[in-house]
Amino acid sequence: MTIAQIAAAAGCSPSTVSKVLNGNEEVSAATRQRVQALLNEHNYERRSPSPAGAPPLVDLVFQELESPWAMEIIKGAVAASGAVGLNVALTSLSEHNGSRGWLDHICARGSRGVVLLLAKLEKRHKAELRSRGLPFVVVDPRGEPDPSVVTVGATNWSGGFTATKHLIELGHKRVAMISGPPDLLCSRARADGYRSAMEAAGLRLDQDLIAWGDFHVDSGFKAAMAMLSRPPAKRPTAVFAGSDLQALGVLEAARLNNLRVPTDLSLVGFDDLPLSTWTSPPLTTVRQPLAEMAATAVRLVISPGNGELRDGRSVELATSLVVRETTAPPP
Amino acid sequence: MTIAQIAAAAGCSPSTVSKVLNGNEEVSAATRQRVQALLNEHNYERRSPSPAGAPPLVDLVFQELESPWAMEIIKGAVAASGAVGLNVALTSLSEHNGSRGWLDHICARGSRGVVLLLAKLEKRHKAELRSRGLPFVVVDPRGEPDPSVVTVGATNWSGGFTATKHLIELGHKRVAMISGPPDLLCSRARADGYRSAMEAAGLRLDQDLIAWGDFHVDSGFKAAMAMLSRPPAKRPTAVFAGSDLQALGVLEAARLNNLRVPTDLSLVGFDDLPLSTWTSPPLTTVRQPLAEMAATAVRLVISPGNGELRDGRSVELATSLVVRETTAPPP
Repeated sequence: MTIAQIAAAAGCSPSTVSKVLNGNEEVSAATRQRVQALLNEHNYERRSPSPAGAPPLVDLVFQELESPWAMEIIKGAVAASGAVGLNVALTSLSEHNGSRGWLDHICARGSRGVVLLLAKLEKRHKAELRSRGLPFVVVDPRGEPDPSVVTVGATNWSGGFTATKHLIELGHKRVAMISGPPDLLCSRARADGYRSAMEAAGLRLDQDLIAWGDFHVDSGFKAAMAMLSRPPAKRPTAVFAGSDLQALGVLEAARLNNLRVPTDLSLVGFDDLPLSTWTSPPLTTVRQPLAEMAATAVRLVISPGNGELRDGRSVELATSLVVRETTAPPP
Repeated sequence: MTIAQIAAAAGCSPSTVSKVLNGNEEVSAATRQRVQALLNEHNYERRSPSPAGAPPLVDLVFQELESPWAMEIIKGAVAASGAVGLNVALTSLSEHNGSRGWLDHICARGSRGVVLLLAKLEKRHKAELRSRGLPFVVVDPRGEPDPSVVTVGATNWSGGFTATKHLIELGHKRVAMISGPPDLLCSRARADGYRSAMEAAGLRLDQDLIAWGDFHVDSGFKAAMAMLSRPPAKRPTAVFAGSDLQALGVLEAARLNNLRVPTDLSLVGFDDLPLSTWTSPPLTTVRQPLAEMAATAVRLVISPGNGELRDGRSVELATSLVVRETTAPPP
């Protein structure tokens, strides 16, 4: 379908369709909706997104700007953008309160491309990004894998496997997993790596030693309090946490239960945020190269050949175990 | 001076002067320098910066994107901008590597205003921001106070005073100060608050108990290791750290010296970053409202009356002591 055909079907002028595609405010909400529905229905895609005319900006869109995790992503994106003379523009969906949607807003001023973080990309937004010719990449997607979307992540499964294997090799048998949210693919993959490592070592998967939460400190704290307050035979001797923040919560729960780390309890986190070197004792963790993941997403989104992005593919950067001072043989 | 007069003095056309003001790339470096020097010399200021024509962006310019401190600033700026339908664009001076300077870059695409963080604003940049009619505000300035620049900060002196008084009231006499960098005004003010509280309580200022560093973890760690490895009579029983990150370093130094916090050593940080609630034990600290400081800076810079910004004034938001679990009477 051409713009003229969309216009005819919508009963408006071609320039109105262009205005919708450009996020122009002059179009009434009703017309905008009618035109956008037709664009989505016919999978309209701009032939030449003309990134040359767009301002020198790359957009990062966060669900929320909450954690030190976001800082690493921002750092990597700003470095990769700065290296080619672009600035990063930030949107936090939880804060965006403009009269129009975040996507209209970005389209109206123009962008070289959009990197979405930890986001569940709604079908509608995916269609709108495509119809407007805005290249996009998702880092750590939520929900089901979507083969039509280019994603960047880390080798989460193998990170989970390696962390658990490290604990098993130290002699631990009662290894707990305090996982992140089940609707994030990266989180599920880490938990599956844990399960596989336990099974590979012939260890029983005890449902009492598996907890699901979110990636924040409090979730790790609560799950660990529940596990560590049990009598010694029912307690884990080691915990693999789905994130460094959750590991911080485990550290505090251990302190409140008078358990010394690593003498009484071993602990492995995930992320290798800067703060993992600042805990007492410094945290053993699985490093995922967050800054490099963000830089990769930026480079994909602004690369001249970003037409490839339509084909969908997924880039996974390597994780690695960083052994510091929170792991030791079981008591 | 008008643009025409500047053009005559520079021996170029008025449109070339306009191009320089707009950060347009078409002007040769030599011409640009000549014109900018004249603009600076004559304190040229655009009458109507016409923010209406600028894209819906506010710029945050960091010296470096390093710490969780930056995350709080970004969060506050994104919230305040999002509330009025603007996005935040980020520049990290340590990363910016475009062919042109960061300021040309921002001017070329336009901006509603610039918030500079922890920056020493060079005279040249100050003049360029003014000549181009770009409103700007500095959060936590570096170097000497500059009455011609609008700044946003916190009541650092009174925060330092309150933190130290809290320790003195618990019974501590040997209170150490591990301060941030001496060239940051916020850092100096915290240290002076400490000194005043000690003097007000009739306590001796022992130079062995005062250290200067930077705001990072390692600086707190090194200074604390030097102090805590001394024989008990020479050791502080309490430390006031210039930042939460420095306090993290003190916590680790205490652990390595087998000193329990707060039983053997009391500790107060400064900032109240989210991580101060995640330490074991949770950190007593001085809260400065970083997100609110950033939001204030954004609101000042985009307010319709930002002509006032020229007059120079300084906004200081209140600090407050947050007592958690790292302070107790001396052993």
